[in-house]
Amino acid sequence: MSGNATRIAVIGAGRMGQVHCRIVSENPRAALSAVIDPFEEGGRRAAAQYGAPWYSSLQDALDAIELDGVIIAVPDRLHVDVTVEALEAGLHVLVEKPLADTLEGARTIAAAAARATDAKVLVGHVLRHDPRFRSAAKIVASGHIGDPVHFRASRIVPRSVGFANRGASPIYMYQGIHDIDLVQWITGSPIVRVSATTAAKILPAAEVDGLDVALILAELENGAVGTIEVSWVLPESTPSGLASQFDLYGTDGNLKVDVTAEGISLDTLDDYRLPNTMLDPELDGRLEGVVPQQFDYFLQMIEFDLPSRIGLEEAVSAARVLDAIDESLRTRAWAAVRS
Amino acid sequence: MSGNATRIAVIGAGRMGQVHCRIVSENPRAALSAVIDPFEEGGRRAAAQYGAPWYSSLQDALDAIELDGVIIAVPDRLHVDVTVEALEAGLHVLVEKPLADTLEGARTIAAAAARATDAKVLVGHVLRHDPRFRSAAKIVASGHIGDPVHFRASRIVPRSVGFANRGASPIYMYQGIHDIDLVQWITGSPIVRVSATTAAKILPAAEVDGLDVALILAELENGAVGTIEVSWVLPESTPSGLASQFDLYGTDGNLKVDVTAEGISLDTLDDYRLPNTMLDPELDGRLEGVVPQQFDYFLQMIEFDLPSRIGLEEAVSAARVLDAIDESLRTRAWAAVRS
Amino acid sequence: MSGNATRIAVIGAGRMGQVHCRIVSENPRAALSAVIDPFEEGGRRAAAQYGAPWYSSLQDALDAIELDGVIIAVPDRLHVDVTVEALEAGLHVLVEKPLADTLEGARTIAAAAARATDAKVLVGHVLRHDPRFRSAAKIVASGHIGDPVHFRASRIVPRSVGFANRGASPIYMYQGIHDIDLVQWITGSPIVRVSATTAAKILPAAEVDGLDVALILAELENGAVGTIEVSWVLPESTPSGLASQFDLYGTDGNLKVDVTAEGISLDTLDDYRLPNTMLDPELDGRLEGVVPQQFDYFLQMIEFDLPSRIGLEEAVSAARVLDAIDESLRTRAWAAVRS
Amino acid sequence: MSGNATRIAVIGAGRMGQVHCRIVSENPRAALSAVIDPFEEGGRRAAAQYGAPWYSSLQDALDAIELDGVIIAVPDRLHVDVTVEALEAGLHVLVEKPLADTLEGARTIAAAAARATDAKVLVGHVLRHDPRFRSAAKIVASGHIGDPVHFRASRIVPRSVGFANRGASPIYMYQGIHDIDLVQWITGSPIVRVSATTAAKILPAAEVDGLDVALILAELENGAVGTIEVSWVLPESTPSGLASQFDLYGTDGNLKVDVTAEGISLDTLDDYRLPNTMLDPELDGRLEGVVPQQFDYFLQMIEFDLPSRIGLEEAVSAARVLDAIDESLRTRAWAAVRS
Repeated sequence: MSGNATRIAVIGAGRMGQVHCRIVSENPRAALSAVIDPFEEGGRRAAAQYGAPWYSSLQDALDAIELDGVIIAVPDRLHVDVTVEALEAGLHVLVEKPLADTLEGARTIAAAAARATDAKVLVGHVLRHDPRFRSAAKIVASGHIGDPVHFRASRIVPRSVGFANRGASPIYMYQGIHDIDLVQWITGSPIVRVSATTAAKILPAAEVDGLDVALILAELENGAVGTIEVSWVLPESTPSGLASQFDLYGTDGNLKVDVTAEGISLDTLDDYRLPNTMLDPELDGRLEGVVPQQFDYFLQMIEFDLPSRIGLEEAVSAARVLDAIDESLRTRAWAAVRS
Repeated sequence: MSGNATRIAVIGAGRMGQVHCRIVSENPRAALSAVIDPFEEGGRRAAAQYGAPWYSSLQDALDAIELDGVIIAVPDRLHVDVTVEALEAGLHVLVEKPLADTLEGARTIAAAAARATDAKVLVGHVLRHDPRFRSAAKIVASGHIGDPVHFRASRIVPRSVGFANRGASPIYMYQGIHDIDLVQWITGSPIVRVSATTAAKILPAAEVDGLDVALILAELENGAVGTIEVSWVLPESTPSGLASQFDLYGTDGNLKVDVTAEGISLDTLDDYRLPNTMLDPELDGRLEGVVPQQFDYFLQMIEFDLPSRIGLEEAVSAARVLDAIDESLRTRAWAAVRS
Repeated sequence: MSGNATRIAVIGAGRMGQVHCRIVSENPRAALSAVIDPFEEGGRRAAAQYGAPWYSSLQDALDAIELDGVIIAVPDRLHVDVTVEALEAGLHVLVEKPLADTLEGARTIAAAAARATDAKVLVGHVLRHDPRFRSAAKIVASGHIGDPVHFRASRIVPRSVGFANRGASPIYMYQGIHDIDLVQWITGSPIVRVSATTAAKILPAAEVDGLDVALILAELENGAVGTIEVSWVLPESTPSGLASQFDLYGTDGNLKVDVTAEGISLDTLDDYRLPNTMLDPELDGRLEGVVPQQFDYFLQMIEFDLPSRIGLEEAVSAARVLDAIDESLRTRAWAAVRS
Repeated sequence: MSGNATRIAVIGAGRMGQVHCRIVSENPRAALSAVIDPFEEGGRRAAAQYGAPWYSSLQDALDAIELDGVIIAVPDRLHVDVTVEALEAGLHVLVEKPLADTLEGARTIAAAAARATDAKVLVGHVLRHDPRFRSAAKIVASGHIGDPVHFRASRIVPRSVGFANRGASPIYMYQGIHDIDLVQWITGSPIVRVSATTAAKILPAAEVDGLDVALILAELENGAVGTIEVSWVLPESTPSGLASQFDLYGTDGNLKVDVTAEGISLDTLDDYRLPNTMLDPELDGRLEGVVPQQFDYFLQMIEFDLPSRIGLEEAVSAARVLDAIDESLRTRAWAAVRS
């Protein structure tokens, strides 16, 4: 269906960029028109694997071909320039989370997006596309649990994720961004103060300079309080690739979301598994789950003029909370989130 | 996107037909071109609600407009004629399960489909589109649990479903068709013999002429044995609208699928719920879950020439098993499935 | 506290007999006065381990020492003679399940017990001492679920249990006796007809002459129907040593008992476990759980004149159902339970 | 068995005192010899219900009868005097948790216990008798999860508990004492620093002067960090009377304990329940579960000279942590636990 297919370039051919290349190439309603990466070897390899031309920069690609949109999967600290460039070129943009690695960067992108009035922008908070969290947000917004009183958000991933990160991104940013966004989105109230602590035993023992876990006490504008717990300490053999829960207690009821298991368990002669059937299963030879659904939603935003599922101001707000966590850890005291 | 939209008529404006009307009308890649039902009042009402013209018959619709495909949601006993008519008119067909209410009817449709070589045909076994069962089938096909030894399929629904059915369709057909298909699909082996029993206390007490439960012992061609349990006895207030599990034990391991809960629980001042987030949640004002996904797959079959996820011979095979269950209940003995 | 301790002999020094020796010796309110086994080597070894004298027969023991009660843990087919002998000697008796391996044997023991009016007799249906099943029985007896409509009893154990059994006892007797008793106890209604089937792939592949699984359709006197599923196919590495559920659906509600997990999971670098905390954990160096609780109840029956938690006629009734299952498997037809 | 029965007086005839009266009177190995309460009406009523004499003070009882031990269930702030009096009278003592409402009180009792070398003392931390937590402590002590890295302890109870408390005891003392003890017992490491926050919406709306929830960040001496969450916000209709979990993540694995459900669910026409089968079920007309098991253990301590399952220094240590939480809430800063 190349006639109607939306023309997409993936910028950044690292691990996540390659996932996006695969997703675009497997979607019959899209065409992977380019893979863009300044590192020629990796860029060419990914491009060849998915049958697209390679370019070393967005400008080179734009000089050579026509594009409708881009997916930005470069390292966090490089988000700002290329995202602004794409927006100024009039392209639709799906940019990986976190929007930027600094509050200033996030604000710069938001300002550029505000100027690019014809461009569709979707920040890659994939959980915004998970029907479990979407249901939770709907239930809370409908008033079923009344006024939020307290919450608990927990996200524990295998230690290999921490080893792979090599201390590049603190865990409260790398993983915590998901939970910060969940809390603010589902409760509908911003985090205004945080107190945090951390521990590090497993990564240092492996000579990786990073934290094992970050724990955050948070106070919301609406008077509710909660904890955010992010860690990468699960054994590699753990049955589920993720142990994640979000519990919210309100004046009229409470809500639990647990995405650790998804309805299947597999118990074999040498292993016990909780296979992932919703986050990113491979079925019929294609990736499915929330990341392809996010991309499909991006296509629908472009094709049918749908609104984003996450506002840019919400992505900026999450960056503000990260800033305050940094400060709390530095000062060993409560830190206010700057508005 | 009406220029490219696939033109669909829904035939049958009953409860399930209305669901299909909604799904078609909410899909931006499809157009609900007609609602067809011989009962003018119900047909016009559904048509008006979803902004489509009403016709009393498929022939009338075909005389007036152009169609790409139809969704057939008439009562089970009326499936054969209209499905054959649609196929002979060259239309793509999505027909609700069971394919037909008799083995002969199922065979007639299969023969018509075999003649209509250009038509895409999808039988509405929605669980074929559920990622949990698709994952299970993939895991078993990959050999992870070895050779199947025994299984248990259980499907318990609220008693209101039985009351609404009013004895029109025996429970082992109405609900059991799902599990018969699951067993044969996931194990890859046909059921060859059955022994069944039933009980009826709740429906008779409400003066409905029907069974509460059917229990079936089944033997597969590959030597495995299992039970199928279908009942509509859950209290209306039950937390989940469905209690359903499929367990398969093999020579090298075992697999459990439980679709009773989907990751959320809601506990309010007057209720406890396990909200449905995958089967058919309403999110952002639209129906989502396996029924819309089934329709989207039907659209992709048409647009991108994809194969059906269930062969017609598989739907016919399920009809054969229903026949044998009937016989076992009549004779109070084991019954062989006729090939 | 040897002055007040109840004097117990354990008869049978096999695997289960040794468990009883340990339990008696760990209970400060009892004294292990003798270990009795005709096989001198095993008998002497167990006796030495638990600091008790060995005797080759009950008569020898009675000639030498004084006893209050015995625990009978000889092979099933040897239950009758020694149990009758103990009862006729005026001893209190805790006899392992099944009461006997034939209906006639069970009746003989019941008759002897009826004559021994001063003896306390407890048949070792340990689940009668599990608070979960006791709660279930109380809930059903209290009418909370109304009149039973259908049930499902499932008991899957590791394949090593089947290998160890070496075909000595068919699985529907060895494991099924638990579920037959549960069904009749909790529903309060006897099983009157059964239809059964089996499969065997794993044991034969290991050259053990036995079944992997038995599946039983059962009809109760009260009109309810259900399935009993017993198998020993779990991989040795399975997280829980037992996968067992009992579900009962009634006219006014339903009840689920799941004793597969008991509140703890342990996930280590090389394993995932659901440790057993209620069936038979070792805590503070002692065995705890239902088997010691059964023994403690036996002591209380003796000391405080408490009634048995299971009547002998109930144990005989379970033997009747085993007989009917045998017949159904032989005839490939429904079999009536003889009264 | 009154000849051998251990003679017990219950001091305090409030809600918990009456539970103890019942437990003592239902235990055939104990005799309820006295109910002691300065409030004559309540004291006489409880005494009459359980067939024991009433006394207005321990001294009056000792002047009239002989006692082996006492159970102290007076209000927290009155623990010190009566516990010291009992110890000085040479009685064995089971004293409800918390040991005292102040650190000084706890130390006074500990000193008196140290002087009363013949008296057995058991502080009523009932979870020390729960096989799930005992198993957890054993697993951690055995090194299965390596060195603790982080933990999460959560205890949510129905709001009626908060309403009944009427602000008498802050929730972090009333409920949190359980979790403080669990953390220190199971990790084997004391809490050294805390940062806490609270919220209050439900109790104030009902004009009760108290907190709905307290959240505590805790740092252990061994470098691990964790959260303690205690709240009484569950709706009265909640399926389980308690939602409680303890998760501990270590360098070599992790452990989850969840005591919210105990293996049974009951779904009726108007309700959904997770009946309590281990904490305090009533079975065969008697209370069972951890509170009677705690009392039975107290009897065994007396009769067979067993050690307490919780040292007095451990109960004092929990009081120290409560002190630090108080300070952290007052100062809005991290507070060190004084040694």
